[in-house]
Amino acid sequence: MFQRILVANRGEIALRVIRACKELGVEVVAVYSQADRDAPYLELADRAICIGKAASADSYLNIPRLIAAAEVADVQAIHPGYGFLSENPQFAEICRSCNFEFIGPPHEAIRKMGLKTEAKLIAAEAKVASVPGSDGAVTSEAEALRLAKAIGFPVLIKAAAGGGGKGMRVVRDEATLPASVQSARNEAEAAFKNPAIYLEKYIDRPRHVEVQILADLHGNVVHCWDRDCSLQRRHQKLVEEAAAQLPIDVRRKLGEAAVRLAKAVGYTNAGTCEFLVDAENNFYFIEVNARIQVEHPVTEEITGIDLVQQQIRIAAGEPLPFGQDDVRSEGHAIEVRINSEDPDHDFRPSAGRITDLRVPGGPGVRWDSHVRAGYSVPPNYDSLVGKLIVHAPSRPQALARMRRALDELVIEGIKTTIPLHRRIFRHKDFLEGNVDTTWVERVLMPPKAK
Amino acid sequence: MFQRILVANRGEIALRVIRACKELGVEVVAVYSQADRDAPYLELADRAICIGKAASADSYLNIPRLIAAAEVADVQAIHPGYGFLSENPQFAEICRSCNFEFIGPPHEAIRKMGLKTEAKLIAAEAKVASVPGSDGAVTSEAEALRLAKAIGFPVLIKAAAGGGGKGMRVVRDEATLPASVQSARNEAEAAFKNPAIYLEKYIDRPRHVEVQILADLHGNVVHCWDRDCSLQRRHQKLVEEAAAQLPIDVRRKLGEAAVRLAKAVGYTNAGTCEFLVDAENNFYFIEVNARIQVEHPVTEEITGIDLVQQQIRIAAGEPLPFGQDDVRSEGHAIEVRINSEDPDHDFRPSAGRITDLRVPGGPGVRWDSHVRAGYSVPPNYDSLVGKLIVHAPSRPQALARMRRALDELVIEGIKTTIPLHRRIFRHKDFLEGNVDTTWVERVLMPPKAK
Repeated sequence: MFQRILVANRGEIALRVIRACKELGVEVVAVYSQADRDAPYLELADRAICIGKAASADSYLNIPRLIAAAEVADVQAIHPGYGFLSENPQFAEICRSCNFEFIGPPHEAIRKMGLKTEAKLIAAEAKVASVPGSDGAVTSEAEALRLAKAIGFPVLIKAAAGGGGKGMRVVRDEATLPASVQSARNEAEAAFKNPAIYLEKYIDRPRHVEVQILADLHGNVVHCWDRDCSLQRRHQKLVEEAAAQLPIDVRRKLGEAAVRLAKAVGYTNAGTCEFLVDAENNFYFIEVNARIQVEHPVTEEITGIDLVQQQIRIAAGEPLPFGQDDVRSEGHAIEVRINSEDPDHDFRPSAGRITDLRVPGGPGVRWDSHVRAGYSVPPNYDSLVGKLIVHAPSRPQALARMRRALDELVIEGIKTTIPLHRRIFRHKDFLEGNVDTTWVERVLMPPKAK
Repeated sequence: MFQRILVANRGEIALRVIRACKELGVEVVAVYSQADRDAPYLELADRAICIGKAASADSYLNIPRLIAAAEVADVQAIHPGYGFLSENPQFAEICRSCNFEFIGPPHEAIRKMGLKTEAKLIAAEAKVASVPGSDGAVTSEAEALRLAKAIGFPVLIKAAAGGGGKGMRVVRDEATLPASVQSARNEAEAAFKNPAIYLEKYIDRPRHVEVQILADLHGNVVHCWDRDCSLQRRHQKLVEEAAAQLPIDVRRKLGEAAVRLAKAVGYTNAGTCEFLVDAENNFYFIEVNARIQVEHPVTEEITGIDLVQQQIRIAAGEPLPFGQDDVRSEGHAIEVRINSEDPDHDFRPSAGRITDLRVPGGPGVRWDSHVRAGYSVPPNYDSLVGKLIVHAPSRPQALARMRRALDELVIEGIKTTIPLHRRIFRHKDFLEGNVDTTWVERVLMPPKAK
């Protein structure tokens, strides 16, 4: 096992990695930007190193500074968390070339899976169906039009290098295609410095179901079952659940498909295969997230596996301590993302000082958060202030538990998504499982008439 | 199911019952004394009724006022929590005679099990071995001496009506017996208004292992495995674990013995059979606790069963939704009691205002507490301010998790037992499981030389 690890991230996931290290008996070094200098979780690390100014480019995205901090702190490995550099193959490669173990997959696998067009080719080889679409990047409006006609409208435009909804457009007819292609390319260029886009069939009202994978350095690959993340707003997940409410044979097939895909690309460490599931439970591969996910706790709750500890153990060369048959799916877990955003005003970010924080407790309630009362949420980074997770023997019991926990949770001084979640957990559609990835904007908060 | 329940208790267990009711969709009415008027958990109840002055005799022990509150609030059932009136058979009987369901066992079973000498007779009939001792109350010093000689020294004097260490004496030789009998009788008279004592064989360095029972109104009785509560100071539990570290066949026999005992006495609802286990894993029944226990969460963690919800469901007439084979024992759970006491000054109570509270989070961590920052712990009641519970796949992982969680937990403004627990969870004897009920006073904090 490593003696010391550096966490190349901030906020909730930095604290999550610190907790995993503490339990493994591994020393842990945190880094922080000037905007995070008063972040309370830094006290829990064995050491904290300032790596630069508030701008991500000067700190959490600055590879030379992160490597310098790792050198100074004399660590053996680097955990990238999620976001920032976690899926940057160059960062993974540089870490390893500097003799720091990168706690994530091989950079070759990140690179292949990061190029979504290539990922789909690999999926096809592994006999995992993708959403029908272009085989590679689409370079002209004419090509886009030809392809869209071949696939059939509606189609979805996606950024080849992207994620998080950036550069994504639904196009329902021929007339609006050229403008959508152009604006998607512009957005992709701005977000990823890469204007490449591709097209695929748009599945109406799909569920978003993903499979958690763990793969060690000795050829063992298991899936840790599935998560349903259909509750999204503008392609940002709001609520995640495990297990997905699908027949057990569909869940097994999803898991097996994800394992085949991981093996096909030589994947190791933790990763997620994302699928769209249509009304007939047909599933289509969409992408691999080559990192730990925000929503990993729901999988931890139903399996009893500490995924972040497993990431570290795998990177240290340990074989998986369990086989596929040992990975159970017990009960039902739900996570809600508590963001410092104002749901009444188009989710605009709400930075500022938290004046009061009351954390829910009791059976089956977990709170993963880097904030405390008196902490000021900086305006510089993402808006996640905490994840509230519940686990119970069944979905109805988990829903009741989450309602109860949401009623106990108090965050004052900033606006948060707590009131939105209280509405969601009292909505008949959601309670009955009748939601899809379009439900929030279509039903819960449709655009107001102007 | 009931429409509305009254909780005849305060603090942590009142909040625990409120949480269970919320998840069951049952309205819940809290009661409070004037000393608890600002208790924050009262806000979570659907209604809160003041029942009297701070003194327990005027409030939480005052049966007419509790019944009046139940009448006023028009509830169908009363949950007694633990402590106060929870094991008072008269209260149970009065509740039922006033047409309120008492969420606990029949008053006849409470009465029989409350008289320890009778409980031992019932155990013998159920073929459950008790610690060898007197068959009934001992009324004279001469009888005590004759019995002690027959049993063999060391012997233990216990109050027949008692609990919590009151009226308890270890006697190692003949010479000190008369004085110990006299002082135990005086203490029992003062504490329980009943001077009756009995004698039993003193088991040197025993482990305290107890079995959780659930029994419905339809004749179904299951055990929910065991808890090891050996870590005690002056017979007050400090740390509780599930499962007990015993061979599985011994655990099964313990569970079966507890089920036989519950059936023999016509027990229903939740209860606990306590045993002493000697170095050879022989176990001896000591008593039944006819209520929910402080340490019930460790059982909830390893079984996935919400014991307080089950208490309510049983009282409402629902059959147990599982059989014995469905009750799993998964992983390892530990609870520590965080008391407002100063371990550096003989555990003297430390009431006052909590100025800061930072609750640990992350995987496998549970916090059951009625306090928050700004709350003033009143000096009138017991000193429990919170229970920190962890769950992990194995005991070593649970120990590491508890160490990590204890390091995150901050309570300022009052003295607490947190520093003591940090020491315990770094002590070799405890980590290796080499502790018994005498270990805290014998090894961890032996009496200082005067």
